[in-house]
Amino acid sequence: MKSRTLLTAVLLSSAVLCGLTALLAAPPNAGAPEPNLPSWNEGASKQAIMEFVGKVTRQEGPDYVPPAKRIAAFDNDGTLWAEQPLSAHLVFALDRVKALSPQHPEWTTTEPFASVLKGDIEGALAGGEPAISQIVTATRAETTTGEFEHAVRDWMATAKHPKTGRLYSEMVYQPMLELLAYLRANEFKTFIVSGGGIDFMRVFSERVYGIPSEQVIGSRGKLKFELKDGKPALVKLADLNFIDDKNGKPVGIQTHIECRPIAAFGNSDDDIQMLQRATTGSGARLGVIVRHTDAEREWAYDVTSSIGKLDAGLDHAQMSGWTVVDMEKDWKVIFLFEKR
Amino acid sequence: MKSRTLLTAVLLSSAVLCGLTALLAAPPNAGAPEPNLPSWNEGASKQAIMEFVGKVTRQEGPDYVPPAKRIAAFDNDGTLWAEQPLSAHLVFALDRVKALSPQHPEWTTTEPFASVLKGDIEGALAGGEPAISQIVTATRAETTTGEFEHAVRDWMATAKHPKTGRLYSEMVYQPMLELLAYLRANEFKTFIVSGGGIDFMRVFSERVYGIPSEQVIGSRGKLKFELKDGKPALVKLADLNFIDDKNGKPVGIQTHIECRPIAAFGNSDDDIQMLQRATTGSGARLGVIVRHTDAEREWAYDVTSSIGKLDAGLDHAQMSGWTVVDMEKDWKVIFLFEKR
Repeated sequence: MKSRTLLTAVLLSSAVLCGLTALLAAPPNAGAPEPNLPSWNEGASKQAIMEFVGKVTRQEGPDYVPPAKRIAAFDNDGTLWAEQPLSAHLVFALDRVKALSPQHPEWTTTEPFASVLKGDIEGALAGGEPAISQIVTATRAETTTGEFEHAVRDWMATAKHPKTGRLYSEMVYQPMLELLAYLRANEFKTFIVSGGGIDFMRVFSERVYGIPSEQVIGSRGKLKFELKDGKPALVKLADLNFIDDKNGKPVGIQTHIECRPIAAFGNSDDDIQMLQRATTGSGARLGVIVRHTDAEREWAYDVTSSIGKLDAGLDHAQMSGWTVVDMEKDWKVIFLFEKR
Repeated sequence: MKSRTLLTAVLLSSAVLCGLTALLAAPPNAGAPEPNLPSWNEGASKQAIMEFVGKVTRQEGPDYVPPAKRIAAFDNDGTLWAEQPLSAHLVFALDRVKALSPQHPEWTTTEPFASVLKGDIEGALAGGEPAISQIVTATRAETTTGEFEHAVRDWMATAKHPKTGRLYSEMVYQPMLELLAYLRANEFKTFIVSGGGIDFMRVFSERVYGIPSEQVIGSRGKLKFELKDGKPALVKLADLNFIDDKNGKPVGIQTHIECRPIAAFGNSDDDIQMLQRATTGSGARLGVIVRHTDAEREWAYDVTSSIGKLDAGLDHAQMSGWTVVDMEKDWKVIFLFEKR
């Protein structure tokens, strides 16, 4: 590298982060190209997505975006996979309470753990966010990152969804897998930006979604570096370090990649800020809300749901021209196992 | 994607994070390949580096590492560029005090700002870490990420190093630029893991080092999402969110990428934990300490230096078989401008 060239580059550069090697780093061949989104019905949603991708990839067009800046951000629960009746991360934590209870005799008499151990999940969760936070925290604390990874992997390989009896890795939306592959075939880099635990999702994001761990952004607890039997280990602590939800989503994106997405996909009011941030830049932008309208194949819920509440998000979608995907009408198939 | 194949993959997968698309995402052609590290003298350091790279890239060899797991982590200040007499980030913050002083009349009578404004840097920094932290914090707070990026870019384009009169982008070590390019040519992914501010480094990491913003890990303050004139903005807050130094370095790596590096490069005691974490896994590993031994071309400092103190790190290097690069003996050239 010539220093003078370098210097010129530094002096002349305009506000371009995300830059050059990110371009080279884009995985154009990750996932099989799915040019036609086969599980999507023809209609306004599919059309909006394909038109947007056409615009930003047309090299001579006014909306062309170089591959380095083709960043797409996806919420996870309710956007890429089912979140009903409880989010997978919460079910995992509830199962961990049972698995860890021999080491915590005090849990048999302390709420919300006592209810969990009696199988009264509704009672355990009656305490709302604080109770959930207590459960997630207690089942994470003092675990090394390696131990936690193994616990998640074992759970994903065995735990069954209470309604479908399927593994959680089968509860992913087939049209969204196709969309991820379609975007990557068009040299987008796909990110998960979820309120869920970052260490939980990273265990399976690659295998399930084709999204490598470093492209997963989520909530995280504090970690402590320590020597265990002379070997360095990272131990999870009870304290939270960052909540990647609502206002936190654009913050999480900034912290991890500093690139502003040009497309964002969510399903609830918790995704509004991420979509605002993605869709208010200059040039072509895409905001998509996945709306749960299919009570038969999945679930139907929106304004009154305690999980995945979608209310203000619908107003924002109308004001800002976001695409609202109607799961019942827009998707030929939701889960791949329906087809068998 | 066939769900049954997916399911099998999930069930059979062993503890492999960092995974498959990370492999595809590695930028094998980023930077010109520099197969011979031309600015490095022949000797034990160059040999150790090249032997390690040879081992992990030899497909039939016992130490072969697939490209997806070829993660190399570099400290920044004192490892990739000069950190004397003060780190660039601190000089930037000191210059910001002057630039922002019209908006802060109270600074003329408040330390450490009053001393900075009088040009008495030594006096301003006499308060040690708390004073430095105050300066860095005050010059960051209530700035949007976009404003901050522009301030850094302007500063990098104009500020001159007090000893050499060169731009800070010229204060990079030529042998380390060659090493970065050499590793990338061998399908490594190169990361910066620095105690410095993440938003500061990301502005120039791509242009100066060929490292995209998402591969920069550093200390960070809290951010707030807000609507400014109806447009979403991210505003930097005074509070620190994470200090990426000492014990924090392996934590920062885990948080950002979850992959454990197989090679790590540092220059001070602050890098010990990162090197421990990188070099204690199974298989071939490389730990490198850059030792500042050249008082003429750069600076000579180690055990007694307040900046970049290297003391325990030398003991660890000996115990753990880390390579200690002697800048005077091992490097033909340190800065490219020497050659002109």
